[in-house]
Amino acid sequence: MSTKPLAIIAGAGTGTGLSIARRFARAYNVIILSRSPASIDPVVSAVEASGGTAFGIPTDVSSEASITTAFNAIRVLYPGSPTAAAVFNVGSWNRAPFLETALEDWERVLGIQGRGAFLFSKLTIPLLLASKHLEYPPTLIFTGATASVKASANFSAFAAGKWATRALSQGLAKEFGAQGVHVSHAVIDGIIDVPGTKEWNLDAEDAKISPDAIADTYWHLHTQPRTAFTWELDIRPYVEKW
Amino acid sequence: MSTKPLAIIAGAGTGTGLSIARRFARAYNVIILSRSPASIDPVVSAVEASGGTAFGIPTDVSSEASITTAFNAIRVLYPGSPTAAAVFNVGSWNRAPFLETALEDWERVLGIQGRGAFLFSKLTIPLLLASKHLEYPPTLIFTGATASVKASANFSAFAAGKWATRALSQGLAKEFGAQGVHVSHAVIDGIIDVPGTKEWNLDAEDAKISPDAIADTYWHLHTQPRTAFTWELDIRPYVEKW
Amino acid sequence: MSTKPLAIIAGAGTGTGLSIARRFARAYNVIILSRSPASIDPVVSAVEASGGTAFGIPTDVSSEASITTAFNAIRVLYPGSPTAAAVFNVGSWNRAPFLETALEDWERVLGIQGRGAFLFSKLTIPLLLASKHLEYPPTLIFTGATASVKASANFSAFAAGKWATRALSQGLAKEFGAQGVHVSHAVIDGIIDVPGTKEWNLDAEDAKISPDAIADTYWHLHTQPRTAFTWELDIRPYVEKW
Amino acid sequence: MSTKPLAIIAGAGTGTGLSIARRFARAYNVIILSRSPASIDPVVSAVEASGGTAFGIPTDVSSEASITTAFNAIRVLYPGSPTAAAVFNVGSWNRAPFLETALEDWERVLGIQGRGAFLFSKLTIPLLLASKHLEYPPTLIFTGATASVKASANFSAFAAGKWATRALSQGLAKEFGAQGVHVSHAVIDGIIDVPGTKEWNLDAEDAKISPDAIADTYWHLHTQPRTAFTWELDIRPYVEKW
Repeated sequence: MSTKPLAIIAGAGTGTGLSIARRFARAYNVIILSRSPASIDPVVSAVEASGGTAFGIPTDVSSEASITTAFNAIRVLYPGSPTAAAVFNVGSWNRAPFLETALEDWERVLGIQGRGAFLFSKLTIPLLLASKHLEYPPTLIFTGATASVKASANFSAFAAGKWATRALSQGLAKEFGAQGVHVSHAVIDGIIDVPGTKEWNLDAEDAKISPDAIADTYWHLHTQPRTAFTWELDIRPYVEKW
Repeated sequence: MSTKPLAIIAGAGTGTGLSIARRFARAYNVIILSRSPASIDPVVSAVEASGGTAFGIPTDVSSEASITTAFNAIRVLYPGSPTAAAVFNVGSWNRAPFLETALEDWERVLGIQGRGAFLFSKLTIPLLLASKHLEYPPTLIFTGATASVKASANFSAFAAGKWATRALSQGLAKEFGAQGVHVSHAVIDGIIDVPGTKEWNLDAEDAKISPDAIADTYWHLHTQPRTAFTWELDIRPYVEKW
Repeated sequence: MSTKPLAIIAGAGTGTGLSIARRFARAYNVIILSRSPASIDPVVSAVEASGGTAFGIPTDVSSEASITTAFNAIRVLYPGSPTAAAVFNVGSWNRAPFLETALEDWERVLGIQGRGAFLFSKLTIPLLLASKHLEYPPTLIFTGATASVKASANFSAFAAGKWATRALSQGLAKEFGAQGVHVSHAVIDGIIDVPGTKEWNLDAEDAKISPDAIADTYWHLHTQPRTAFTWELDIRPYVEKW
Repeated sequence: MSTKPLAIIAGAGTGTGLSIARRFARAYNVIILSRSPASIDPVVSAVEASGGTAFGIPTDVSSEASITTAFNAIRVLYPGSPTAAAVFNVGSWNRAPFLETALEDWERVLGIQGRGAFLFSKLTIPLLLASKHLEYPPTLIFTGATASVKASANFSAFAAGKWATRALSQGLAKEFGAQGVHVSHAVIDGIIDVPGTKEWNLDAEDAKISPDAIADTYWHLHTQPRTAFTWELDIRPYVEKW
């Protein structure tokens, strides 16, 4: 197996994850960690259709055992392959009046945005630190949302998880930036144009965010030299109110 | 037992918790939830020495069973007593290079600042919603820190917990503010003047935050009428660099 | 003339300025700087009706000559009176599509929120630095607005002015906090309950901010000891969406 | 003269302005507005050396007459050329203890960051609104600094100016984003690697921001489609403390 560098993407599906995988697969072997095998297949197919290679490992990032197993598999399958980039793009969602939010909901969201993001960082950063000889600085990108910077009514649990991820990304950016690893956080503020939002009745053209455009910006972040790292940027459609 | 209103304070000790307890005990019966019985006694003594009444319940706020038991006890012990105020002032602390931060450390911090703050809110908000007839709007205050707004290197886990608490407080402020409950978050930015920091060699006079001054500001927040709620304020000593 | 300490308030009228004047007049001689003499009279009357003393000086704070003359007058009229507090509460307002905003509008807003705030600070800070022997730390408070932290469409000029004031207040808080002067900034986020907004058809009770409540919070800021200064807080009615 | 689209850059010199000019000149005719003719020449030379074309107009952006004259000249010289991009990159600087900051210093900084940014926006936005047929959405980028988001002691005037510019950019992003014009603000946080900072004794390699890297990120912002606009991002060297 080649030692082409790897891009490890946690969180796939038919939207942002797929576009990021396809974009990074132009340069790297893509590894996809996603809970449901069913969500891995379309991403692998899309990557291969565009001439790249991707390999999926069904993984629950919020489980220490599951994610550790996944990274052990990566080590075995790709010995000698450096990791050029890692993207934490795992979805979670909770919208409910606070008093109707069960502890299980809280734990699920924080299990992904908190523990999952923590474990993913713990496992990818050592790989990234070992990849400073590659063309671009090794990069770890977290996908955030409107709720990463604003906690709205009925979104307390969801926002708590997203703020935790954002804090993590900022602390890591400072600690590992100085060591040459580029850590970024993107605030995706708007509806993403995926199959699941196709029927959403939006008045304006181009009012939903193109996942390919998100992927292009993630790629740009990855190519920034260490003299000019961006920690955070926002991405929103031109018509979004904010 | 009287039906004097209650102030429920999670997190006690010899610093901020003690001062808040003493300040709110001028008007209310104070209930102290603190993990260690040893940390409850000095607070109860201090409150009683200043003419108030306080009652402590050893509680692990991060445990659903423990905190539920504590609130059941409050219900039994103070039937008919409305809850005028609740303060989440529970400490947690973690400072370590990220790669040396164990999952247990992460879980401990998020267990307190995340799950603990969530459970405390779930249990106090229904009590506060039932107390709108009292002199001041029922109030829920969260104690934050520098790390609530800034994630520094070596503080990723601690900051993730504090950001989660802050997000929770903002979501609750919006959701329950509209229902007449005042939710606030105080960013305590500096060293607090407690026995444990006595020996810290600080050059300037008054360079550490007086916990009594924090308590006075919390009391002011509590007295704000619903036409003029403050969600967030910062508190720091005059010499603090920020 | 007595050497009772002074509170110098720039910006008066029938709303916040009047309430602040009345609140601070309980302890200090109040000086009111306001552009229009007509806006001074009701404030002086209100202060006197509640047993205080106030003196108004018609002043255009955006004019170096006018504001310098005003402070010269204060020096002559109140020799030996220390200045305990200063409040910059001057209104400005601009809402217009950007391309219809004339340079004169921009200059008017920035003349008040920029130059006016700068000149007021330059003239009050030396007085405040000389007042550290008083009961409370000498205090300089700036009244901000929603637009101090958020620039909305059609509010570019107004927001630019308010952000400039807020930046000024933060820089001053750091520079003069260390010298014992308390500098604060209050983000007033909502409609204030003044005669001019009486007819505004609001559905909920208490949905407008009580100017007296703002004044109480300003007074609390003033009483904070130097171990526990607040730079910024927000004030909004419980029903406000944010 | 061709009707190749224009990129209008206010603020040139040997650093960021030069790199931006060279980068945008790969696609557009570059117009440089800069106060000093001496600062225009090296930029024009650098652009031409890399195969592009640039034209400089000595302009004081803080003067309505001067900047209006400059845009009239552009209209005459490039009839029919659409404007694809505009960059406000004008420097200003002030560091002084507040009480030693003269009104002239304040006016100079606010004249550039306030009035200058306002006038430049007023004159470029109509041109950008007329350019929506080009390959990329018409773009207006403002260069910010650390002081755009943080006002430090001794930087009150400088920060007031930078915050005003940032507010302006946010209001414009909302108002004209909806009309298809992309408005961005870049927070440049660190020392830029220009001839003037060559001798600065920095310990780490690559510790100063490469102006070419800034230019590459500005170009990326320009290429973002309207479904995915970034308003703000930060750029800092990997070793920067923040």
